[in-house]
This record gives sequence, C-alpha cells and structure tokens, in this order.
Amino acid sequence: MSYQLSPHKNTNVRVSLPAVCFVWQIAMIVLFGVFIRYDEESDAHWVVYKKDHNVTDIENDFYFRYPSFQDVHVMIFVGFGFLMTFLKRYSFGGVGFNFLIAAFGLQWALLMQGWFHSLDHTTGKIYIGVESLINADFCCAGSLIAYGALLGKVSPVQLMVVTLFGVTLFAVEEYIILDLLHCRDAGGSMVIHAFGGYYGLAISWVLYRPNLNQSKRLNGSVYHSDMFAMIGTLFLWMFWPSFNSAITDHGDGQHRAAINTYIALASSVLTTVAISSMSQKGGKLDMVHIQNATLAGGVAMGTAAEFMITPYGSLIVGFCCGIISTFGYLFITPFLEKYLKLQDTCGVHNLHAVPGMLGGFIGAIVAAAADESVYSKEGLINVFDFEGDFANRSPGTQGGFQAAGTCVSIAFGLVGGAIVGFILKFPIWGDPADDNCFDDEVYWEVPEDEETIPPVLEYNNHMIHKHQEM
Amino acid sequence: MSYQLSPHKNTNVRVSLPAVCFVWQIAMIVLFGVFIRYDEESDAHWVVYKKDHNVTDIENDFYFRYPSFQDVHVMIFVGFGFLMTFLKRYSFGGVGFNFLIAAFGLQWALLMQGWFHSLDHTTGKIYIGVESLINADFCCAGSLIAYGALLGKVSPVQLMVVTLFGVTLFAVEEYIILDLLHCRDAGGSMVIHAFGGYYGLAISWVLYRPNLNQSKRLNGSVYHSDMFAMIGTLFLWMFWPSFNSAITDHGDGQHRAAINTYIALASSVLTTVAISSMSQKGGKLDMVHIQNATLAGGVAMGTAAEFMITPYGSLIVGFCCGIISTFGYLFITPFLEKYLKLQDTCGVHNLHAVPGMLGGFIGAIVAAAADESVYSKEGLINVFDFEGDFANRSPGTQGGFQAAGTCVSIAFGLVGGAIVGFILKFPIWGDPADDNCFDDEVYWEVPEDEETIPPVLEYNNHMIHKHQEM
Amino acid sequence: MSYQLSPHKNTNVRVSLPAVCFVWQIAMIVLFGVFIRYDEESDAHWVVYKKDHNVTDIENDFYFRYPSFQDVHVMIFVGFGFLMTFLKRYSFGGVGFNFLIAAFGLQWALLMQGWFHSLDHTTGKIYIGVESLINADFCCAGSLIAYGALLGKVSPVQLMVVTLFGVTLFAVEEYIILDLLHCRDAGGSMVIHAFGGYYGLAISWVLYRPNLNQSKRLNGSVYHSDMFAMIGTLFLWMFWPSFNSAITDHGDGQHRAAINTYIALASSVLTTVAISSMSQKGGKLDMVHIQNATLAGGVAMGTAAEFMITPYGSLIVGFCCGIISTFGYLFITPFLEKYLKLQDTCGVHNLHAVPGMLGGFIGAIVAAAADESVYSKEGLINVFDFEGDFANRSPGTQGGFQAAGTCVSIAFGLVGGAIVGFILKFPIWGDPADDNCFDDEVYWEVPEDEETIPPVLEYNNHMIHKHQEM
Repeated sequence: MSYQLSPHKNTNVRVSLPAVCFVWQIAMIVLFGVFIRYDEESDAHWVVYKKDHNVTDIENDFYFRYPSFQDVHVMIFVGFGFLMTFLKRYSFGGVGFNFLIAAFGLQWALLMQGWFHSLDHTTGKIYIGVESLINADFCCAGSLIAYGALLGKVSPVQLMVVTLFGVTLFAVEEYIILDLLHCRDAGGSMVIHAFGGYYGLAISWVLYRPNLNQSKRLNGSVYHSDMFAMIGTLFLWMFWPSFNSAITDHGDGQHRAAINTYIALASSVLTTVAISSMSQKGGKLDMVHIQNATLAGGVAMGTAAEFMITPYGSLIVGFCCGIISTFGYLFITPFLEKYLKLQDTCGVHNLHAVPGMLGGFIGAIVAAAADESVYSKEGLINVFDFEGDFANRSPGTQGGFQAAGTCVSIAFGLVGGAIVGFILKFPIWGDPADDNCFDDEVYWEVPEDEETIPPVLEYNNHMIHKHQEM
Repeated sequence: MSYQLSPHKNTNVRVSLPAVCFVWQIAMIVLFGVFIRYDEESDAHWVVYKKDHNVTDIENDFYFRYPSFQDVHVMIFVGFGFLMTFLKRYSFGGVGFNFLIAAFGLQWALLMQGWFHSLDHTTGKIYIGVESLINADFCCAGSLIAYGALLGKVSPVQLMVVTLFGVTLFAVEEYIILDLLHCRDAGGSMVIHAFGGYYGLAISWVLYRPNLNQSKRLNGSVYHSDMFAMIGTLFLWMFWPSFNSAITDHGDGQHRAAINTYIALASSVLTTVAISSMSQKGGKLDMVHIQNATLAGGVAMGTAAEFMITPYGSLIVGFCCGIISTFGYLFITPFLEKYLKLQDTCGVHNLHAVPGMLGGFIGAIVAAAADESVYSKEGLINVFDFEGDFANRSPGTQGGFQAAGTCVSIAFGLVGGAIVGFILKFPIWGDPADDNCFDDEVYWEVPEDEETIPPVLEYNNHMIHKHQEM
Repeated sequence: MSYQLSPHKNTNVRVSLPAVCFVWQIAMIVLFGVFIRYDEESDAHWVVYKKDHNVTDIENDFYFRYPSFQDVHVMIFVGFGFLMTFLKRYSFGGVGFNFLIAAFGLQWALLMQGWFHSLDHTTGKIYIGVESLINADFCCAGSLIAYGALLGKVSPVQLMVVTLFGVTLFAVEEYIILDLLHCRDAGGSMVIHAFGGYYGLAISWVLYRPNLNQSKRLNGSVYHSDMFAMIGTLFLWMFWPSFNSAITDHGDGQHRAAINTYIALASSVLTTVAISSMSQKGGKLDMVHIQNATLAGGVAMGTAAEFMITPYGSLIVGFCCGIISTFGYLFITPFLEKYLKLQDTCGVHNLHAVPGMLGGFIGAIVAAAADESVYSKEGLINVFDFEGDFANRSPGTQGGFQAAGTCVSIAFGLVGGAIVGFILKFPIWGDPADDNCFDDEVYWEVPEDEETIPPVLEYNNHMIHKHQEM
C-alpha cells in the first residue's frame, strides 16, 4: 500500500536525510578529534592523580553522578521518546526521531558546551567527564521539548536542523545565564524548559498550517498508544528527582534537590487529577492531563530544587503547577490554536514553557529570600556559589539576576525559534503535506496492519488442510 | 459513545474526586509546613556538619541509598502500575489510579512514619532524608497491594480512602513490629506484603459482589495488555534486590540482601514455569503465572534477605514460593472466590499475602538459628541490632518476636481491612455497578477504538481522489 | 481454538519442561549448598573485616558496582527480552523464554564462573559478591544472543539445553581468554558477543528448516509489536555504557568505559539512520534497522571501551559499525538464508557476531598502540594489568593476544554451537513444526483476540436493554 496523498509536497528524504547524517557525523568526528579529551578523572593518568591529590577511587566524580546520569539518560530517550508515542499512527516517529535527534544533539552539545564552559585555553582542548555527559543530555532536552510542539508536522531533516540550532542557542543562552549572570539553574527551569518550550512554540508559530485539520483523523490517540505514552510519563516522573539533582553540589545539594522534586511531583499528581476530573462530564479523567500535567511540578522545581525552598514550599509549587498546567491543556492550547495560529501537538506550552518560566521566577524569589539563619554563612556561599567575582553579591541581587536569566531564556527561545522557523519554511526539507501529518507512513516502512492476521491464518489453515487432503 | 449500563449506581465522581484531592493535598501542605524539615544531610548546614563530624560528601547517606531508592521508585510506579494493566479494558485505571494513590500515599506516609519513627521531641519536627523517601514508597506499597485485590471494582475516591487508612494502619503496625517488638523486616515481608495482602483481601471480602460475572467479558487480558503487564513484572523482578536492600545496614547488609534476593527470584522463575506447564493441556504456559508467581521469591525474602540465610537457603525459599504461588493461582483463588466469597482480581493472596506471611516465618526461623560462629559476635549485634534495651536478647528470642510480628501484621491487615471495607460500603463513593466493572469507560475518557482507523483512512483517500478529479 | 497444524511434530512439553526445570533447579540447590558462600564484603564478618583492613562502608565494592549491576540486569531481562518481542505473535515467547533462560543461566553461571575464576582451593568454596552477579548476567547474555538467532523455531526445553551448554562453553572460553591469554574484555566484545553470536548461528545452521516459509505469515512485526521492541532497544542503548563499564577498574576505568560507549552509540544511530534511509524507496526508515543496528557501536566497544581509544576513536567505531550492521540486515542476512541455509530470526549475525568480532580486533589494535606517553607508566600497568606473570608483556604482544582471544571466542561459538545443534536435532525436545513457528499458540495459553471485544460489548448492551425492557 503506497499512497501519496498530496502530489505538491515531496516527502522523499532519501538523499537529504542520509546526507545530513553523514556530513554532520563526519564533522563531529573531526571536531572531536581536534577538541575533545578525557578529563583527569576518566584518563589513565588517574592512578597518578590519585596519589598526587591524596584521593581514593570512590571520590571520583563518576560515583557521585553516574546513577543520576543514567536516570537522566532514561528520561531523554525513553521518557521524552515514549511520551511522544501517544498519537495513534505516529509512534514510530515519536520515539524514533526523538532517538535520532538526541543522539546527534548530545555530540554537538559536548562540543558547544565545551567551547563555552570548559575549554582549556592553554591546551585548546575540552576535557570531558560524567558531568559533561549529563550536561549534553540536558542540552538535547531543549530540542526534544521543541520537537514536542512540532510532532507529526515536520520531516526528520527539519528536526536535525532544529537540533543543530537548538543546541547552539542553548549553549549560548546557558553561557549568558549561568556564567555571565551567575544564575543557579541546576534542573534547568530556565535554560532547558522555558527556552525549549518557547523555542518550539516560535518554530511552530512560523510553520503554522491553516489546513492541518485535513489530518485530524490521525491527531489523537488510541487505547494502546496512550499506554505507551504512560511509559514515558512515568519514567519522566520517577526520575525527575535525578534530573534536578544530577549536577547540583555534592552532598546536601544533590540530596535536597532530589527530596524537593520528589515532593513537588507528588503534589502535582493530585491537583492534575482534581482539575481533570472537574472539567469533564461525569468526572472522567483525561489521559492527556495525566500524561503531562503531572510532570509540571518537576519542571517548575528545576531552579529552586537545590535551594532551601522547604518541603511544604515544594508541595505548594507542585500544587499550583498541576492546576496551571491542566488548565493550559483545557483552555490555553485551544485558544492558542484558534486565535494565535499556534499548533502545539504535545502542549509543550503547558508542560514546559509556562512551568519553566514560573520555575525561573520561583527560583528568583527563593534566592532573594535566602538568609544566613536558614542556610548558615558557609551554606549560603556554597549553595549560591558567592565566590570569586561574586563574593559580595547579596541574595536579593541574586534573585534579580535569576529573574533576568529567566527573561533571557525566553527571549532566546522566541527569537531563535522564529529564525529557525523561517529557515524551515524553505521548500527543500521534505516536510509532509497538511493532509499527511501525524502519519508514520510518510517516513517509515510501516508493517501491515494487525487486523489482517486472522484471515491469513485461516487461509493458511485452509491451504494446509487442502494439501493434506490431496 | 456513552452508556450507563446500570442506572441505579451513580459513578459520577466529578465533585467527590476533586474534593478529596484538594482537601487532602491542602492538608498535606499545612501539615508539612508544621512538621517536615530537611535532615542534617540534606540541609544547607551540611557544609558545617561535615567539618564538625569530620566526614566527606561521599559519606552522605544519599550516596549509599539513592540508586536503591530510584529502583524502588520504579517498582512502585512502573512495577506495580504496569503489573495491573493486564486487563483488556482497565489499563488506564490500572496504571493511572496506581499513580494517583501512590502520589498521595507517599506524602501521608512521610508524615505518619515521621510521627511514629523520627519525630524529634525537642523541636517537634520530622527530619527527612533519602531513607524517609524509601520508607514512604514502601508504605505506599501496602495500599497498592490492596488495590490489586480491588482492581476494577472500586472508584478512585474509594482508593483514596483505602490509601488514607492503609498508610495509617501501616505506620502503626510498623511501629509495633519494628520498634516495640524490635523485629527486623528490611524488605517488608511482614509489614508490607503480609499486611498489604490481607488488608486488600479483607476489603474485597466485605465488598463481595455476587453478580460480578456480569462483567466477565472484561475480566481477562488480551495479547497486548499481557505484554504491558510484563513490563511491570520485569521491573519488579529486576529491582527486587534493591527493594530488599534499600534500607538495610550500610556495607554487608545491603550487599547480602541484594545477593539473596537475586538468587531467590531466579529460583522462583523455574518452579513457576514448571508448575504452570504441568497444569495446562499440552504443557502450555499461562501468562498469569509468569507475571506474578515469578515474584514470590522476592516477597518471601523480604525479612530474611539481610540475614545469613546462605545462597542455597535463598534458592530453596524461591523454589518453594514459586510452587506455592503458582498453586495459589491455579487452585486457591478459584476456591476463595467460590467458597469464601472473596474476589481477588490480581491474586494478591498468592503473590503477597501468603508469600509475605511465609517470609515472616522464614525470617523468624533464620533469626532463631543465628549464631556467632556464622555472624561473628559483632556481626550478630550489627545485623539484629542487639543494642540498647535489646542488648541481651538472644537469637532464639528474636525469632519468637519475628514470628509474633508476622501475626501482628496479618491481624492489622484483616481487622483494618474489614473496617475500611465497611466504610467503603456507604453508597456515596461512586463505585461501579456489577455489570460495569473492569471498564475504563466509567472513570476515563477513552479514545475511539483503533479498528476504526482504516475505514476513515480509506474514506479520506477516497475524498481526496474525488477532490483531485474535480 | 486449538489447531495442530502438523500432526507429525509433538510440541507437548508438559512432562519435559517441568522435568528439566525441577531437576536443574534442584541440582542448583545442591551445588550452591556445597560450593557458594558470601564473600568478605557481603558476609556478616564485614564489620570485623572493616576494622582489620581499615576501610569504611562506602569502600565496599557494592557501592562501586551496584548501580551498574542494576543497569546490566535491566538490559538482560527488559533489554534482550523486549527486543525479541517484535514478532507479531511471538511476543510472549520472546520476553517469556528470555526470562526463563536468563533466570536459569545466571544460577549455572555463578557456579561455572566460580569454579573457573574464583574457587578458593583451600576451602573448596566459591565466594560471591556483586561482581559475581554482574558476571553471571554477562554469562547469560551469550545464550540470550544465541536465542535471538533461534527465536520462534525452538521449544523452551531446547532453550534450556542451549543455555546449559552455552553457559558452560562461555565459562571455559572466558577462562582461556581472560586468564590464560590474559586478554582484557570488560564489555565482552569477544567473550559475550562474538561467542554468543556465532554460537547461535551455528545452532541455527544445524537446525535449518527448508520449509520455514510455511510460517512466513507470522515472521514479521505489527505496529504495536515494533513499539514493544523499541522498549528493548532503548534500554539496551541507554544502559550499554553501564554494561561496558560494570566490571572495569574502579575510578578511571569505569569512568572512561562509560564515556567511550556513550559516544560510540550516539554515532551508530546517525549512520544507521543514513543507511536505512538510503536503502528504501522514498528514504523511509526501517524499524528493523533502528531497533538493532543502532546498538552495534556498543557491541564493538566491548573490549576497547576501557582503553584510551579517545573520544573521536569511539565516534569512528560507532560510525563504521552502524553502517556495517545496517548493511548486514539489508544484504547479508538474506544472503545467509538463501545461500548458506542459515536462518537468523533477529539478525544476531549483524548485531552481535560481526560487531563483536570487530570489537575484538579493534581492542587488539588499540592495545597494541598503547604507550606510556598516553597512559603514563602506572596507567599502562593498571589498564592492562601487566603484573605478576605478565609484568613484562609489551602492549604489542598484548595486542596479539587480544586478536588470538577473538579467534578463540569465535571457534568456541562455532564448534560448540554445531555440537549443541546436533543434540537439539533429536526428536524429543518438542520443537514446533515448520508451519507452526513464530507462534505463541504452541507454548502459551494465548488470550482471545482483542477484535472480539466490541461485538461482545454490543451484545451485552443489547441484552441489558432487552432486560430493562422486560
């Protein structure tokens, strides 16, 4: 069965997709060869380093961060990947293109983040360790969030472009926010979620398809695709404490970030269920809400999780964000589509953009309210890294910079996304026609439908019996 | 499609479910505000504490327990959640309500367990760290097990009630067993599995539905729902060593508990397969057995895993419990339903109640048999915590108390479950009618069936071709 | 519905499967009782050992390796298990028999590897700890890879035989390669993948079925079975860094192996997508390639990951193996089936045999090229374990031995597989007939088809309305 619904759109990527993959992968090899080296904790010289610095193996950063890294890795590939399988006939594209762009994005992120954050100016090399891997995964998350807004409406080649620019923009805004403004954003409410969300929304706004309802029949879930999406939801939900604590300070920083996130997420679940039930006839729950809004507490704790926000503060954040996010799915997404010409397949506006922005401002408030009676003098210095050039910064000032950082991330998302959107409008990228969206048939060899098994079976049985009779 | 099969039952939870979620979540916020604080390892004062106590970051309990915590977390949400998706049309309810009640239960558990186990009487506060999170997850497990017996027959509001009381009862029986009787039960054969199993069975017995066979058409699996359930089974099976070792002593305690559980579970798989194959015509295996009885070895090792039960002892436990659990699914569940009026959807009797009870008694025997030649003098004190008031307790006495603890957990489950069952009989909870059980349509917006895609597709193609012809 | 398509094959395993399970499990109990004990880190004497050796709890090997162990455990049971669920009607067998043989194999592996590698000749005991569990899981992987070649064509009893011999052969070849030849192979390119791949191919070659196309209707995927297989793919892909680093040296060894594998795998994804797209009309991607060839980089890094292969070296390995593996699926598997009479259901030739062999030779080259300027003197000794009898071995010599080790693993696979294949040809094992392969109906109680729900529902509704009318 091969049908090309819309003759005026060429979705053949047989040249462009392999070309992009090969060219970019070869570029990665060359650039890695020039720039990337093992850091002192992953180099064979560690045995010497240990002696010189009087440390033991267990103090290798690997043992502080590797379990969190693996949880983050699961979130990126299974969490984001399966969350995007909810469409009835775009599950291959959801999980498969997520896989492709994350695998490319993390390589490019190692380079971009290395150049901006850890380039050794004496040797001209980037030295990587487990924390670099976590940051690379985080950097991909920005582009994967953007993919959520575009799901089903773009070609894999376009997604590679989204990721190339997304990772680049991410590294720049992250450098401005974390290094120049000296913000804290361990779980990335600002740099990951607000940026990624608005980046995707801006692209989607530029790529508005007035006739998308021609694909309406496929823009929805079926029973089993909703179950696959729940795999993504749950792995994101469960491992979010690791996400927000993966690169925080050793000791209390990681410990506290995990606890705060755990608590906030639990609270989001209850308010999501409450609003979802209130909004439907008979109090029935909507899977879209359960799959997404339950995660809003984790997004909104991305900045404040490492601070002394207190356990009940975390509960309040989760409480509010579960409500806001569910309201977003109920009212704002339809509003955006109808009045702002903004088609947001996964509702990243409600799960990432708004909770990420809120998370940035929550972080600003909690930072501004910090004082020595709660943190201790050393604790305050430690948590906010008030050292070196920033030794005299006060918590209040820090709060202001945190708020400014949030605005920077949104601006980068919106402006960067608009530019990338216009690039993607060139008619060379193989994107699907309006009546051909949300359909794996366009970019995947899709196996025959399951419904055809029983007749074939009967046919075979029939032929066998005939054969035996002969 | 909206059909209300049984007009005499009102399953509308549009008021009650949001009300319960909001009221309880707000109560949590207030109580957390009054009681819950970070412990010294997750507080920003850690930087001071480290210096005062001459410890380093890696000795923060976070690094001893966080990987196990995340494994336990996966078991609670994906393990239990997906194990309960096996019904053909109750997968949303299986994984979704599991999500809801665990997210509520863990908050309530932090409070209840805090009051009973770690309330600081000088400050009136509960100080939480990663071990508190593990214990909170464990505490939820009791109520999730109970949900297994009730699956498909209760409303989400009823489940919230089951969890409220379940967590409360859990905290009390745990206090009696672990603190007053000074039992050891790191993996919770007694306090989690025996209690949770009998709690669920008692509730289900009170809520007996004589006409449940009106929903018979939905009380079974389909091919793909069995596959989803295998996700739950495998994550439970793989991470059970983490479950039983998550809160045991640092060092040999965690190490040994993981090894023993790993070995016992492997053994359960082979005997489950053997009995399942023997019981069916042609030696065919039954997915119900593979999904459940393979886990019995983990349940039964919940108490003894941290003891010196020896590797072959662990194999024997797994061997026997695989057999007993599979026999339970074959003979005891039908017997209970027919003669004791006890409807146990997931067969928690065979997977949790009986193996948990056996695990309690196995622990008692292994404890009673402990001696210094095997444990060393310090080892014996260390493993059984023979210190303070219990410094003179002998292993034999300990064994007696372990057995008594098992009885306490069963009594709490049965009596508590009976009382909660009667509470749930009030006609205000929105539970489904007998002909409406095991059906997601009652509490969920269920997407249209997949089978309708191809005709729609053809229809669209047809219309497009027509359009092109015009 | 019961149909026995081919009366001349008896697939009844009601006696043989339980018999094998019971006899072997009882043998395990006896042998564990005689041989297996806790090692000093998991024994209750640890409290004494700590004092005597002046170590602390965190230096227990458990904390170095347990997170990696759990990742490997997930790869064995969910990774391999779900990867083999891609067939439309063999998902139960894919994940279920994987479960069975891994659960048996790991027990037998603890014994076999114990006898060969860690038997204490003074006490005659094998002392196990977390590293033993990882090795046991690794050892199972060889047999699970072999199962990939046999998927759908053998009975569970045959699989138990495959595993019994597979684990035995594995322990012997591993002893020769790692102990006698003193090769390094932490991630098992040679001992796991090359061995397992060729072992399975040799068995499959002996068991060639000329009339297998009688089961052609079932030898393919459906939409949802491809999604289940992606769960397996992604968990394998994500956790492969843990696989290759699980038993490497503490500190830099584990750290570097994880980084190298992470990088190589990312590269494989892009070249797999490129070749897959190039090979199909319209540039459409093939799920078979995405599910399998993306993993080739991890297989090929199994030996070299712990060496100083450099990050760009890892990228190159992943780049080439993604291409080679995808070409294998496109051209070599059909060639093997047509001209060499070799039926390889999962294409283990392309994912394990060839990348494993290449990984062995890549390891040999990287080892031969090692020098002190890159590793440091101590680093070189540390990484290649040039101590004791091997203190004077040069990197060049080491390279030669690594290459020889690769040949040993292939020889063991081919010869061992051929012998096991002939054993499996005896007509006593209950294997399916040619027209009955790839069908869960043969060994499983399969639930009724989903398609039959809606009519039943309508029927019920109809009856209810009738009833109400009366």
